[in-house]
Amino acid sequence: MGKSKAYLDCRTREQAQVLWRERLAACGFFDQLPVEEVALDEALGRVAAASVYAAQSVPHYNSAAMDGIAVRAADTFQAQETAPVKLTLLSKDHPFSKGGCYVVDTGDVLPEGTNAVIMVEEVHFAAGEAEIIAAASPWQHVRIIGEDIVANELVVAERQVISPVDIAALWAAGLETVPVILKPKVAILPTGDELVASRRELKPGSILDVNSHMLAAAVRQWGGEPTRYGIIKDQQEALEAAVQEALRRHDMVLVNAGTSAGTEDFTFDVLSRLGEVLVHGVAIKPGKPVVLAICAGKPVVGLPGYPVSAMLTAEMFVKEALAERQKLLCAEAPEEEAVVVRPLASTVGVEEYVRVSLGQVQGRMVAAPLGRGAGLISSLTRAQGLIRVPEGSAGLNAGSTAAVRRLRGGNAAHSLLAVGSHDLSLELLGIHLRRRKKEIHLSCANVGSTGGLLAIRNNEAHLAGIHLLSEATGQYNLEQVRAYLPARPWLLVHLAMRQQGLMVAPGNPKAIQDLRCLTRPGITFVNRQRGSGTRMLLDYELKKLGLSGADINGYEKEVGTHMTVAASVASGTVDVGLGVLAAARALGLEFLPVAAEQYDLLLNFEPCDERLELLLEVLRSQEFRADVEALGGYDLSGSGDILGQGNG
Amino acid sequence: MGKSKAYLDCRTREQAQVLWRERLAACGFFDQLPVEEVALDEALGRVAAASVYAAQSVPHYNSAAMDGIAVRAADTFQAQETAPVKLTLLSKDHPFSKGGCYVVDTGDVLPEGTNAVIMVEEVHFAAGEAEIIAAASPWQHVRIIGEDIVANELVVAERQVISPVDIAALWAAGLETVPVILKPKVAILPTGDELVASRRELKPGSILDVNSHMLAAAVRQWGGEPTRYGIIKDQQEALEAAVQEALRRHDMVLVNAGTSAGTEDFTFDVLSRLGEVLVHGVAIKPGKPVVLAICAGKPVVGLPGYPVSAMLTAEMFVKEALAERQKLLCAEAPEEEAVVVRPLASTVGVEEYVRVSLGQVQGRMVAAPLGRGAGLISSLTRAQGLIRVPEGSAGLNAGSTAAVRRLRGGNAAHSLLAVGSHDLSLELLGIHLRRRKKEIHLSCANVGSTGGLLAIRNNEAHLAGIHLLSEATGQYNLEQVRAYLPARPWLLVHLAMRQQGLMVAPGNPKAIQDLRCLTRPGITFVNRQRGSGTRMLLDYELKKLGLSGADINGYEKEVGTHMTVAASVASGTVDVGLGVLAAARALGLEFLPVAAEQYDLLLNFEPCDERLELLLEVLRSQEFRADVEALGGYDLSGSGDILGQGNG
Repeated sequence: MGKSKAYLDCRTREQAQVLWRERLAACGFFDQLPVEEVALDEALGRVAAASVYAAQSVPHYNSAAMDGIAVRAADTFQAQETAPVKLTLLSKDHPFSKGGCYVVDTGDVLPEGTNAVIMVEEVHFAAGEAEIIAAASPWQHVRIIGEDIVANELVVAERQVISPVDIAALWAAGLETVPVILKPKVAILPTGDELVASRRELKPGSILDVNSHMLAAAVRQWGGEPTRYGIIKDQQEALEAAVQEALRRHDMVLVNAGTSAGTEDFTFDVLSRLGEVLVHGVAIKPGKPVVLAICAGKPVVGLPGYPVSAMLTAEMFVKEALAERQKLLCAEAPEEEAVVVRPLASTVGVEEYVRVSLGQVQGRMVAAPLGRGAGLISSLTRAQGLIRVPEGSAGLNAGSTAAVRRLRGGNAAHSLLAVGSHDLSLELLGIHLRRRKKEIHLSCANVGSTGGLLAIRNNEAHLAGIHLLSEATGQYNLEQVRAYLPARPWLLVHLAMRQQGLMVAPGNPKAIQDLRCLTRPGITFVNRQRGSGTRMLLDYELKKLGLSGADINGYEKEVGTHMTVAASVASGTVDVGLGVLAAARALGLEFLPVAAEQYDLLLNFEPCDERLELLLEVLRSQEFRADVEALGGYDLSGSGDILGQGNG
Repeated sequence: MGKSKAYLDCRTREQAQVLWRERLAACGFFDQLPVEEVALDEALGRVAAASVYAAQSVPHYNSAAMDGIAVRAADTFQAQETAPVKLTLLSKDHPFSKGGCYVVDTGDVLPEGTNAVIMVEEVHFAAGEAEIIAAASPWQHVRIIGEDIVANELVVAERQVISPVDIAALWAAGLETVPVILKPKVAILPTGDELVASRRELKPGSILDVNSHMLAAAVRQWGGEPTRYGIIKDQQEALEAAVQEALRRHDMVLVNAGTSAGTEDFTFDVLSRLGEVLVHGVAIKPGKPVVLAICAGKPVVGLPGYPVSAMLTAEMFVKEALAERQKLLCAEAPEEEAVVVRPLASTVGVEEYVRVSLGQVQGRMVAAPLGRGAGLISSLTRAQGLIRVPEGSAGLNAGSTAAVRRLRGGNAAHSLLAVGSHDLSLELLGIHLRRRKKEIHLSCANVGSTGGLLAIRNNEAHLAGIHLLSEATGQYNLEQVRAYLPARPWLLVHLAMRQQGLMVAPGNPKAIQDLRCLTRPGITFVNRQRGSGTRMLLDYELKKLGLSGADINGYEKEVGTHMTVAASVASGTVDVGLGVLAAARALGLEFLPVAAEQYDLLLNFEPCDERLELLLEVLRSQEFRADVEALGGYDLSGSGDILGQGNG
């Protein structure tokens, strides 16, 4: 039950960031950086360590900027329409003499003695002479030395990120190498007795070391050079030795994790002994147990163990430090306004970060919160935006507006938001849409069929997957949609018939064959919640067989997802449950088909949205149908059929 | 004078891009891409070649999500405040029996037989028993198998750019490698008799091969793998052989240049023979002479020779093709509105691209056009934005609004726009400002002192470098500013005293000593334009000496910049000119100091702009003063002194 050890001083994020910046500056982390000289062809994306000045002028000679004749301007000053001036045509090897001229092409060296070019269109050539009727001003149509870059002029400024055009300018200016900042060396130390390095070592209770790989990639993305250490056991001496070793060869050290207040968390103690701990605990969620320290004059960061917390706090305290050191501009998307579709409770006194899906629905930017657990890596990979709930706020109501920062670039205006019952075919739908138009991104929030209907009614989604069976008629979806959305436009499109079935342990030890077996003595069952499509299907099928839920041991126990049902079966807590094939497959269960159910898409698009056409195109395509049917348990022969529409 | 050969068919950019995309699709450039399997630690930024599905569920075991006791939910259903239920505490090695429970910490494996956790705060422990007063629902406070990622679920979709969190998700899902698209191999063939590969081979008339380095870096930035070929001479056979060889080993070939209609331009002919030329000439400026062809089933692009044209057309036809092949989203900044400060003439029928500096001045985004020559590499490195003048437009008036696309990222709201007389110290000012705040970018447009006054008056700049001498009083700047800006706020701050002097050929062959020598017979001079600070200085100094311009041979000949004066002297066209030390140094001229002139900054900031404080801080800092004085010819002892201000 873990002893409690109070955090040294839990600061706000802003206090912690300000203090961190100050102390990093004080310990010299932002200047006196090691430099290397690299060839220009290797310089792309590197940061110039010093300002670089031109070694030669560009162009390096005076040249004709037009086809025509090169002249001495003074010889032309008398020329007028009424009094043409005749100049003698000289050959290129002939030295210039007063009143002479040379024929030149664009780019030719301007012959010595001349200082202007007259365009060929304005010259009348006749027997060894060129006749002109207007004066030339000095240097007209001449590309002069240094017109582009002057010798000794600045070409690339210190701390500039070197781009292709900078490389061009440096080459042109006579340089072949450029001094760049050596990438900051960052050590990453994964710690914890429960950690294992590879999937082959995994057993119940052990955790795969994922964070060190994620942090190494993040450090690389932020312009650093990461070193991943091997896993360090929860022993004070081992950790202390590793940190000391890492400090000798790196500019910054990250320890992950061992930063919370549990019994086996030594990071704070070790860093206190090796140097000065500036911050222990920041009032943010996720991510509170972060440690910021300066040891041996170098920054050491203790990051929390949950992946979401580790990533969020690394962005706050590592990314910023690396960027400031190299003067890199962090290309952060500006904050945008979005309507939050579900209430977000938050703790006063803690700044909370919530991952969301984003989409532009009927002209409003809509944010659908994803899972908030600090352990949910999938909420990071699926998130398109991050909402910051300020520490003074107790949360956001559904329908209220929040500032959201976009992750992963892209354009939320191209995102399709699917809110409703989840199905694996939706992910394939996203992939096929993107094949047709690469900007499209489909994000899914899984709230069940009824939640999907609600989201469409409230203009909070572009599409909702639904499978709502009417017990009275045995029909799916259409009448429920009609009843629920009388006052707005919608389109109902068929996606698939999919198999629901009974999930049982491998080998089917209780020899269950069909729904009738659920009433057999000694058989335990787990049910889905009221309102879910699967519960409706069960009730409908039981009724057809003349059975009642009261006859089933466990009918009254409700869980919320296909996967929870499968986990109940897999752990042996119950014998059987009803769900889709995919959930059974995921946990290695056996699957006995019960019924094919109709899974449709309820759509909500603006009239001229080209993505609607693309969506129907995909649903009707052979490639998409084949891909979904390959999952097993699907029939897509009617996918893309329009089942009905409302006009509002 | 170059024979004229008509372009095959000059298309609009849009026509050319549509046709190019269609034909690239038809020849399979966008699919059937070669794939390589890379370790996850090498996968950052690569593009997934196929969708990747989880090999295991995450978490891979059911675990306690809270500190407390693990129970079987069914055993707790009777518990109420008035009727507590007592459960027997079991040790972990004891198998579960009805009515038992286990003490668990967060993260512990959920003991077999249990299916819920009750928080420690809600348990009363007593002699081998745990007493509870509320029922637990199944799976409460349990982190179930697959809660984050379910086995066989999609982890990374095809064509997704792999990020640090994707690497985390892939690791967690039991994967160690990922299939990624082999980077497209792009050959770059520099062609031209005038090209030389290194600075050491340069002579008048030859051109350094800069473009192949720039294009290679650009291809790398766009996700391709470039190969730079050696320079190919302007011989049809040589070019043909090189293109054929390159096609065998690459996915795309770029030929640069030889694409215009001159006599020695074989690219079109060679590509016609090797395959099909789709486009020869696009109605854009710069960049018209582009050739798009399909040879041996692969795309070949002939890019124009001028660096600006080459880069612009490569972005249109190479970047897009590489992005579409890999389904990369081009993170292009959205177009913004900006006020154009100078008129921009444009040709009807041609889509014109103009590089600009950008800055947010008094609430308006202001765009100052840079040099428009297709050969000006510096206009690419200095540009912060690109204005597209549509083909139907004859140009833009000063003060009109245009759509501008930001280059180089960053935030134009942080850009300081300097419009006025140029001085090398301004570049150092920009560097020192950025040292203090990395987001600041100082861009300079050089239009002379009077142009600077005008820009400040019109709210088109934050600062203007000026050196305006009043012949009547011998004073600099202040009274001119007062006279010119009676109706608006401004601040005049001193920057430096700088040396102007006479520039003469190396060795000073005419033995010129001072301004008096200009009137000597046989000495030729070149002057600066009326209104320039240097012209005013000359007139003032001549007057002091009792000399008149009429006595100087060349006084009436005017050129526009310090560098043009220097080039006139360097080429031997004239003997002497007046200008700053830097220009003399650039062309290796000798310099005879004439007078120190006062160079000040006229400032135009919004009242609360923190950058004004930073600017004054820099001007008054020892580091900045030392850096500028090291240029030679500068005295900064009073830099940062406030000389006057207006209140409007």
